[in-house]
Amino acid sequence: MTTALLMSSSRMGSLGYLEHATSQLDTILEGTSRKVLFVPYAAVSFSYDAYEELAAPPFTNAEAQLTSIHRFDDPVAAVREADVIAVGGGNSFALLTRLYGAEIVAEIRERVTNHGTRYIGWSAGTNVATPTIRTTNDMPIVEPPSFGAIGLVPFQINPHFIPGKPAGHNGESREERLAEFTAINPGEEVLGLVEGSALHVTGTRGTILGDNDALVFSGSKPVRTIAAGASFELAEIQGPVA
Amino acid sequence: MTTALLMSSSRMGSLGYLEHATSQLDTILEGTSRKVLFVPYAAVSFSYDAYEELAAPPFTNAEAQLTSIHRFDDPVAAVREADVIAVGGGNSFALLTRLYGAEIVAEIRERVTNHGTRYIGWSAGTNVATPTIRTTNDMPIVEPPSFGAIGLVPFQINPHFIPGKPAGHNGESREERLAEFTAINPGEEVLGLVEGSALHVTGTRGTILGDNDALVFSGSKPVRTIAAGASFELAEIQGPVA
Repeated sequence: MTTALLMSSSRMGSLGYLEHATSQLDTILEGTSRKVLFVPYAAVSFSYDAYEELAAPPFTNAEAQLTSIHRFDDPVAAVREADVIAVGGGNSFALLTRLYGAEIVAEIRERVTNHGTRYIGWSAGTNVATPTIRTTNDMPIVEPPSFGAIGLVPFQINPHFIPGKPAGHNGESREERLAEFTAINPGEEVLGLVEGSALHVTGTRGTILGDNDALVFSGSKPVRTIAAGASFELAEIQGPVA
Repeated sequence: MTTALLMSSSRMGSLGYLEHATSQLDTILEGTSRKVLFVPYAAVSFSYDAYEELAAPPFTNAEAQLTSIHRFDDPVAAVREADVIAVGGGNSFALLTRLYGAEIVAEIRERVTNHGTRYIGWSAGTNVATPTIRTTNDMPIVEPPSFGAIGLVPFQINPHFIPGKPAGHNGESREERLAEFTAINPGEEVLGLVEGSALHVTGTRGTILGDNDALVFSGSKPVRTIAAGASFELAEIQGPVA
């Protein structure tokens, strides 16, 4: 049974790194060894060592211990032996390219889906937990072998959702980008999570954590909201259409 | 000899569609038949018919006639016979996927590089004129067969360049995204064009058109500027490193 915490972002407003997520981390770590395997592959402009140092304190506050996968000789074995896997944010294309390089895309899917390993992701770490990275906000700085990702939930998520666009600029708003997604992928829907929000997955059900409602973007129907705190069947949001 | 007008955007500030580009269009159309083959494949949320209607007036103002490629039975033949090709903005991933689908990526490259066909692109149409779409700002709503693109210039361009980021949001600024690009692609540089600017390519030389300086992002060196109106050898900006 899949248990996963898929966070929109590492930060909310002016709070510190994962500071908004203390109770969310507590919930997902409950009943585990509290030893967490950290995947820092989304880091591009800073080192894996630096990323481990940045991400550790909120886990320490939750009485958990973070160890980065780059400290292991065999990343596949590290995933296989992990009780909890945390995949940090950064660049989704770099992250997915490196997950494929380490040959752990299928391994993470298998462990979380069938062996009870818990998954924590934020930002890019949430993107790769969906079927594909087609709803990332990141620049495609490297080309992964495929857009196909871990797929712990059956639908796409757009993290860091923000409405509107900056004044005086003619780039697309996020709503326009997601409207393009649903136009070119008919029938498929996208869950938008604003910063500070998360999707808590337990088996076939999801719960929206945080203070803000989540949005479901659909090409054919109006945008609908899922209230903060509400639970729903994951199958209610339409994933990729074969 | 390649002759191309690579515009950052279809709009500048509150001006109308390509309204800022009247003199730029005049320059590139000079000496041609003024019959322009339009490629509307970047359109996702609206029809090719609608896109042709939107894009035609600024060309009419330049005494040119725009005909969309979707009106031809054979897109490869349409490209082969074109005197001027204009590739409009929209979503770069949709555009590149459809260019490959119509089998005209290599054909456009060949015609523009070796047969004097002129190329006009804006936004996504500029992205696909570079070696790859790795510096697009667009959401990867569909997966193209490859990130490799037409490659009329030897380096990446970031259109719609804008400094900074919206207040209260924790997504990356454009500078941070481009710093990630240069970090993961060592030695490679990116030309940033703000809205309203363009790169005019004639042979091995480029000229920055518009009122604003262009920026060159480099991982190892500080950001440098190319003054509005200045000409330079294209080889001065470092492209993909083999």
